[in-house]
Amino acid sequence: MLTTHGGRIDLAAASYRHAPQPWIDLSTGINPNGWDASGVAIDWSPLPAVTALAALEAAARTAFGMSHGAVAALPGTEIGLRLLRDLGLPQPAHHVVPTYSTHAAALPDSQPIAVEAIGTAGTLLIANPNNPDGRILPPDQLLAIARDRRDGWLIVDEAFADIDPAISVLPHLREDDRVLAFRSFGKFFGLAGLRLGFVCGPDAMVARVRDRLGSWPVSAAAIAIGTAAYGDTDWIAATRRTLAASANRLDALLRTNGLAPQGDCPLFRLVDHDTAPALFDRLAAAGILTRPFDHDPRWLRIGLPGDEPAWTRLAEALRHG
Amino acid sequence: MLTTHGGRIDLAAASYRHAPQPWIDLSTGINPNGWDASGVAIDWSPLPAVTALAALEAAARTAFGMSHGAVAALPGTEIGLRLLRDLGLPQPAHHVVPTYSTHAAALPDSQPIAVEAIGTAGTLLIANPNNPDGRILPPDQLLAIARDRRDGWLIVDEAFADIDPAISVLPHLREDDRVLAFRSFGKFFGLAGLRLGFVCGPDAMVARVRDRLGSWPVSAAAIAIGTAAYGDTDWIAATRRTLAASANRLDALLRTNGLAPQGDCPLFRLVDHDTAPALFDRLAAAGILTRPFDHDPRWLRIGLPGDEPAWTRLAEALRHG
Repeated sequence: MLTTHGGRIDLAAASYRHAPQPWIDLSTGINPNGWDASGVAIDWSPLPAVTALAALEAAARTAFGMSHGAVAALPGTEIGLRLLRDLGLPQPAHHVVPTYSTHAAALPDSQPIAVEAIGTAGTLLIANPNNPDGRILPPDQLLAIARDRRDGWLIVDEAFADIDPAISVLPHLREDDRVLAFRSFGKFFGLAGLRLGFVCGPDAMVARVRDRLGSWPVSAAAIAIGTAAYGDTDWIAATRRTLAASANRLDALLRTNGLAPQGDCPLFRLVDHDTAPALFDRLAAAGILTRPFDHDPRWLRIGLPGDEPAWTRLAEALRHG
Repeated sequence: MLTTHGGRIDLAAASYRHAPQPWIDLSTGINPNGWDASGVAIDWSPLPAVTALAALEAAARTAFGMSHGAVAALPGTEIGLRLLRDLGLPQPAHHVVPTYSTHAAALPDSQPIAVEAIGTAGTLLIANPNNPDGRILPPDQLLAIARDRRDGWLIVDEAFADIDPAISVLPHLREDDRVLAFRSFGKFFGLAGLRLGFVCGPDAMVARVRDRLGSWPVSAAAIAIGTAAYGDTDWIAATRRTLAASANRLDALLRTNGLAPQGDCPLFRLVDHDTAPALFDRLAAAGILTRPFDHDPRWLRIGLPGDEPAWTRLAEALRHG
């Protein structure tokens, strides 16, 4: 189960009963120092207002830098990816691997494909930044892939794209591009329990996703917190700088311990090493959960520690290998 | 737009700019005196834990009185109803009318049918208690409808069933019954902005819905608040009594003003009268939103006022007709 998704501290704690408390969760790519939602008043009583949902989507569209197309709020991109199969996207369907585990289930009859082998027909699903290896393709390369396709769609999972405005295809889309992009609120803003994501792209396709979800796709909290956070441009700019610095610090710590971190997404790093299973076990025994992968036991994904005690515990656990 | 769904105060306020403030929303069937969620601590940062989601679903299953079958949490029953079309339910498909507007879109090629004309083949979607007319069928009658069907499924939308434990089919289901039931958290508990519902029924069918939603179907708040509220049996019992008393009071008020309220669901009453459009307009001009219906202009659905000022304003607006 720990190799299906990150974030399963409850399962890890059941397997490593003698680990020191509290657990440090480095198994996800969620910002450990998220936007402070404590000051946002939430009225749970009424159904969320049409105008409030529209304001959230407008704030997200501005934050994503879009000049064409529409944005529809989702109760998490996980659900959005699973609705792709309802859109009648053209065959053949491929998802670029390695990638987030849900991608294999998102499109009917989808076949895995390496990024070097991408064809020019049908539907292609790719994550950018990619998870777990942190690979980032520039938007012009992705747009060329989209525009070269015959009778097909490019679906870009931009769950981690908030970390740098230069990553996203969304500011560059033309009206006739057959591109859908998914955005996730919870990762960069560090509020994964809110369950908020977005699908972005041509009006007609976004409208079809909206129709599958109905009138109240997200909670009153998702609307109130999401609208406020996307508008907090000072916090966004400062957090981009802080995350980059933390990623550099993690790189240095891993290298000091003989590990070569991979990837360009500052919310996590991938370690590819034959000692990865032993390292996972040693870190878990020290109450630090990282992310192993069934399909490649040499891999371990490691997220950012959130405070100095967490950095210290990680440094000590790595040193005593 | 006001005839699609209730709860659109923002649209009403734009149409009736001189209405007194604040608006009183009687356009939905949401309990105006909901469960107090202010004391529930919510940690938005991590992804909701597998064990926490399981605890919510177990609490709901207990509250629904189920002894067979499974429960899966949904980010609102609206989304759950729209996933029905992915389950390959057998044709022909019918939805019992009049009913909640989403039912017509929930099943592919679904045809409307009157409750008196229900056949014995294929898939049937029915709300119980029904919305907007408040009709309640006893569970043994619904189970007979289900068990008489050849190669079909009965889908019961029990969005308002929390008001009386005698209403639901769920405590009476046998393992071989081909019945799915939807439950809504937000109506009885008065927290519609939380976006929480459930699909209940045989393990294999519920697992298919779960698969369409993925690993984190509902928010941290839905899990924390839902688990606590379903466990608050004292509040549930007291609220059932209070809602019944309020419905009696609304009946008396409507009758005093020459209107004959219909229905047995205490969260709302239906008025069927040729003055309904004028009454909607008069109440809206007084800052009171009720629920009109495109397909029958003689109808007006009226929810429960939540406090004495609201009762007074409703009484005065009805009297000065």
